Amino acid sequence: MSKTWTTSGPELHLVLATSGSRRDALESALRSAIRDGRLAAGSRLPSTRALAADLGVARGTVVEAYGQLRAEGYLGARRGAGTWVAALRVDVPRPSRPAAPATRGVRFDFHPGQPDLSAFPRAAWTAALRRGLRTAPDASLGYGDPRGRPELREQLALYLARVRGAVADPERVVVCCGFRHGLSLVCRALQARGAKRVAIEQPCAPPHGAAAAAAGVRLVPLAVDERGARTDLLRRLRVQAAVLGPAHQYPLGVVLQPDRRAAAVEWARASGGVVVEDDYDAELRYDRQPVGALQALAPEHVAYGGTASKTLVPGLRLGWLLLPSELLDPILAFRAVEDVHVPATDQIAFAELLRSGAYERHVRRMRARYRARRDRLVGMLRERAPAVRPLGAAAGLRVLLDLPAHGPSASELCEHAATRSLLLYPVAGRNAVLVGYGALPEHDAAAGLHALCDLLAESY
Amino acid sequence: MSKTWTTSGPELHLVLATSGSRRDALESALRSAIRDGRLAAGSRLPSTRALAADLGVARGTVVEAYGQLRAEGYLGARRGAGTWVAALRVDVPRPSRPAAPATRGVRFDFHPGQPDLSAFPRAAWTAALRRGLRTAPDASLGYGDPRGRPELREQLALYLARVRGAVADPERVVVCCGFRHGLSLVCRALQARGAKRVAIEQPCAPPHGAAAAAAGVRLVPLAVDERGARTDLLRRLRVQAAVLGPAHQYPLGVVLQPDRRAAAVEWARASGGVVVEDDYDAELRYDRQPVGALQALAPEHVAYGGTASKTLVPGLRLGWLLLPSELLDPILAFRAVEDVHVPATDQIAFAELLRSGAYERHVRRMRARYRARRDRLVGMLRERAPAVRPLGAAAGLRVLLDLPAHGPSASELCEHAATRSLLLYPVAGRNAVLVGYGALPEHDAAAGLHALCDLLAESY
Repeated sequence: MSKTWTTSGPELHLVLATSGSRRDALESALRSAIRDGRLAAGSRLPSTRALAADLGVARGTVVEAYGQLRAEGYLGARRGAGTWVAALRVDVPRPSRPAAPATRGVRFDFHPGQPDLSAFPRAAWTAALRRGLRTAPDASLGYGDPRGRPELREQLALYLARVRGAVADPERVVVCCGFRHGLSLVCRALQARGAKRVAIEQPCAPPHGAAAAAAGVRLVPLAVDERGARTDLLRRLRVQAAVLGPAHQYPLGVVLQPDRRAAAVEWARASGGVVVEDDYDAELRYDRQPVGALQALAPEHVAYGGTASKTLVPGLRLGWLLLPSELLDPILAFRAVEDVHVPATDQIAFAELLRSGAYERHVRRMRARYRARRDRLVGMLRERAPAVRPLGAAAGLRVLLDLPAHGPSASELCEHAATRSLLLYPVAGRNAVLVGYGALPEHDAAAGLHALCDLLAESY
Repeated sequence: MSKTWTTSGPELHLVLATSGSRRDALESALRSAIRDGRLAAGSRLPSTRALAADLGVARGTVVEAYGQLRAEGYLGARRGAGTWVAALRVDVPRPSRPAAPATRGVRFDFHPGQPDLSAFPRAAWTAALRRGLRTAPDASLGYGDPRGRPELREQLALYLARVRGAVADPERVVVCCGFRHGLSLVCRALQARGAKRVAIEQPCAPPHGAAAAAAGVRLVPLAVDERGARTDLLRRLRVQAAVLGPAHQYPLGVVLQPDRRAAAVEWARASGGVVVEDDYDAELRYDRQPVGALQALAPEHVAYGGTASKTLVPGLRLGWLLLPSELLDPILAFRAVEDVHVPATDQIAFAELLRSGAYERHVRRMRARYRARRDRLVGMLRERAPAVRPLGAAAGLRVLLDLPAHGPSASELCEHAATRSLLLYPVAGRNAVLVGYGALPEHDAAAGLHALCDLLAESY
């Protein structure tokens, strides 16, 4: 079955496989058209009704396919504004000369998921590597334990118990290449033992949806309100696992409230389900002690994941899992086949950074720095653009700004911002932008926040 | 359909899924029994005839399933000796105290794939990291180019062109987490564009078979004789890709002869097929200049893969691909979803090690060291155990020893060796052992080679 239609860009020729279900065929045709660029970011898709008629399939089939691809991050949608192709987070290959500016024409990049890269403690990291390598046995440089270096797992277990209140046993810690790699390992292990449906917060970080979907499970959107994910609905969704960000939901920034935490745990216990806890930035909490890890409530039902991408830098590609015992072996079996591990050098350096206390000192320093930026931003907003409502500012590197109806829309605001060399990030399905105040280099942070508030004050 | 049978270990209960083909069901039941340890390494499987009768399936079905699992490395077989469960290269989790000896009771581990870990240039690596970090821009520590750091790709392209005669463009270099990760990326990209059957050398490194199979392609064994892989047979095998080790086949150690190289390239050109070139240890060649990379003959048909695991250490998990242009985008699309990358720190350090010339100096030093060990071993064998025939000694870290029929078999020899604290590695399907002389630490190398030759002289 094949069909050509006209998007806002060029015409698209869509070929549906004749084997398998129509919904699968449609999803996979759309995915490859988006991946290989035939459907460019921003292209508007036909309405579900029109496409269903064109292809001769039930409208429900198209609705479900669009929903799945939204959950995977391929599509964006807003009520009344139709469905369009999302900007996939594929970093565009940059020219190979390091001299070329990384972000052409952008002075202030408010990337919502990036910390201040200029703050990476380069000297402390190198010193930790040198100290660690001084005593590391030769065997540490070979094909090692698939869970990661024992000294790092031990330090991580101590750290997670102390700082996140987790029930942490070094034997159940698995070092991985960032949170998303850990999420992929957990989802593949769940799929291998029969999981078919996994709940994922809606909205969520689109790459997480894509990573989970690549494991071969179906994503089931889970609504999020101002009290966190609707874990009270999990039972009804007939899912075998749920990916949650209890401490600081992305992108909304809400904290999962106590009754919702209890509901998640009860659901997992009653159904044998697994919660995947995304604890990506809990250390960076400003207004009070961070909420403890959900994992502590049900260590045998929560696969906990953390990362150094926010506290240090994403370029380290360093994350960790703390696993229910029954997931450990299946995950190690995957690792044995794929053989993808964090280099021994970085594991040795990070273990030494944790052991010496330098890591926690760094986190404290960064927390103070980001809190000052946040206070400044929230204060200026209150004074200069009181109609703009900041959300989720209690933690992390970013704030969500709900925009008033009386001014430019989120996408118009992003366009205005670009003309002033400001990069803002719209939120799918909501008239809001994400402002990553953490991403600015310290020497430019004040100027960046001022430029942003100037723009907002003029607009609303 | 379910069946219990008695292996040389405990009884095994095998449940076949009722959906899908019988062959798939049987393969997958055996794979999970082996993965989760119900079928232990060394267990003997029933004959194909007996199992077919027990399960009520055609004997051909069992023959094909056994063949596939042999190619994937789950099973071993020798003519007349039946089929058994192979020792999967799943590193056994070690206790978490670093003080515990890594290899209990083993004094000389002749691991065939491991270099001398004691030779890792720790100080030079740390110095390269410090120097590299001094000038690396902040942006290098963020979410970077999915191909890897530009300065590393540039250095790798220069190195591959100079040392391996490759046609190397930095834009087509992709930094990955070791060769196997690169192989997995290539196989998944091939599968995504329709490849169904991939030829793999028989015998080969079992983990490579498993990694390729995990990409969802069917493995087709390709025979290897004393002139290298039988690339003249590729056309007949109806495969879309072939994984070859032209410079130094693993484990046999043969070099692909010129007519076989030509046949591989002709096949790829004529059929649009892809050769995956495993160039894991070509720098360590002793008797003459290494044979140039096959990639240079057909850059648009060869996906070239290299690694620092043999020249430096496996614990760095550092490899690289040099790709045909049409494979670049699909592979970057996978990377965008899986988000698994080599840390910026190691990329920066390795780029600086290459730039400064320290890497090539290190390789030269190691080549001299390994050549001395090899000469010593081959000389002692000639004198003390002339019936033992060394193969594939012209390069690399290991030699294959074909054992004479008049003494202990390979598995008996390995057992004798173990009583003397020597760890030797049998070769599946051949009365031979692999001796990794490279793996010994320098201070123990002479003693290890002597202990080995004592054993061989007494045995044959």
